[in-house]
Amino acid sequence: MPSFSPALDALVEQFAKLPGVGVKSAQRLAFHVLSLPQEEAEQFAQAILNAKRDIHCCPVCQNLTEGDGPCPICASPRRDESTVCVVADPKDVAAMERSREYQGLYHVLHGVISPMNHIGPDDLRIRELVERVSGGTVQEVIMATNPDTEGEATAMYLSRLLKPFRVKVTRLAYGIPVGSHLEYADDATLMRALEGRREI
Amino acid sequence: MPSFSPALDALVEQFAKLPGVGVKSAQRLAFHVLSLPQEEAEQFAQAILNAKRDIHCCPVCQNLTEGDGPCPICASPRRDESTVCVVADPKDVAAMERSREYQGLYHVLHGVISPMNHIGPDDLRIRELVERVSGGTVQEVIMATNPDTEGEATAMYLSRLLKPFRVKVTRLAYGIPVGSHLEYADDATLMRALEGRREI
Repeated sequence: MPSFSPALDALVEQFAKLPGVGVKSAQRLAFHVLSLPQEEAEQFAQAILNAKRDIHCCPVCQNLTEGDGPCPICASPRRDESTVCVVADPKDVAAMERSREYQGLYHVLHGVISPMNHIGPDDLRIRELVERVSGGTVQEVIMATNPDTEGEATAMYLSRLLKPFRVKVTRLAYGIPVGSHLEYADDATLMRALEGRREI
Repeated sequence: MPSFSPALDALVEQFAKLPGVGVKSAQRLAFHVLSLPQEEAEQFAQAILNAKRDIHCCPVCQNLTEGDGPCPICASPRRDESTVCVVADPKDVAAMERSREYQGLYHVLHGVISPMNHIGPDDLRIRELVERVSGGTVQEVIMATNPDTEGEATAMYLSRLLKPFRVKVTRLAYGIPVGSHLEYADDATLMRALEGRREI
């Protein structure tokens, strides 16, 4: 595209850096921002700066939070401190909370072990998890990483790492998703669903 | 999604306002911005503010440009001042320039007449076009709005409006796109391609 404005090119470049946004989409988004009233464009820029300034990791569970001290979940007296659910990302906490079933605490790894992407155990919040578990309050650690190769490997690695602390380490159940059809379930899921069958 | 951070919610909301970005994508983009180094997040916010500050409409053709005075195309002595190509959006100028065929000037309407969206002639840069044409230098006005209902209607409206000034008003040719297959062309396009057939 002929560059007729360095400021526009710079904005397109910024949008194109976002995950899943190609050059065409980035151009469309940049033109949209240009068409916004001055005030709304400033709000957009400010929201980015505010989020970066205010949001940090909870010192206990490493989930994203605002303000000083532990996050609302860690600070809540109604949550069960003896159970910790280990997830890869902050958005997984949001997904678990949506179910309104889980009453324990969380631990956010901020990624999974991935040799392909040069992410090793030291790049994740694993040291913080070991420290929490070594404290003695935690009785059960539920592995809730994604059921893919890297998520599995990370869960396996952590379960071995936590064994010396004599905590129960569990894994979310595999099986047929609720509301789906058997015929569309893949072989691996069906096999896991069979393995995990329960008496009714 | 349970709101655990107002600053994060605000950022998600800003991304979700962008065209074609749903709530799920907005969350993904917001988490991505949070994971950026402070410096890169500031560059993103600054690119938005810079673009809004530096980019404005060329006083002649209404295309987006930076700096004072007319845009580089309007200011170029090598462009043919007697021909003006009318397009709906700045990105259409970029598309025309990519073809490297057109040597005239442009006029950007910043939209098309669309009663459904409450956009009338007064909401577009039509007054500016009439002023340019009434100046006497312009000999031909090429309508290059999109070949859809609103683009057509806008082109028809403008051609009637410009008639009193005795300029030639033309329309981009319709036909089979280069490199496509006849069998995939729709009826309307084929009809227009037949109508516009030329001796070889």
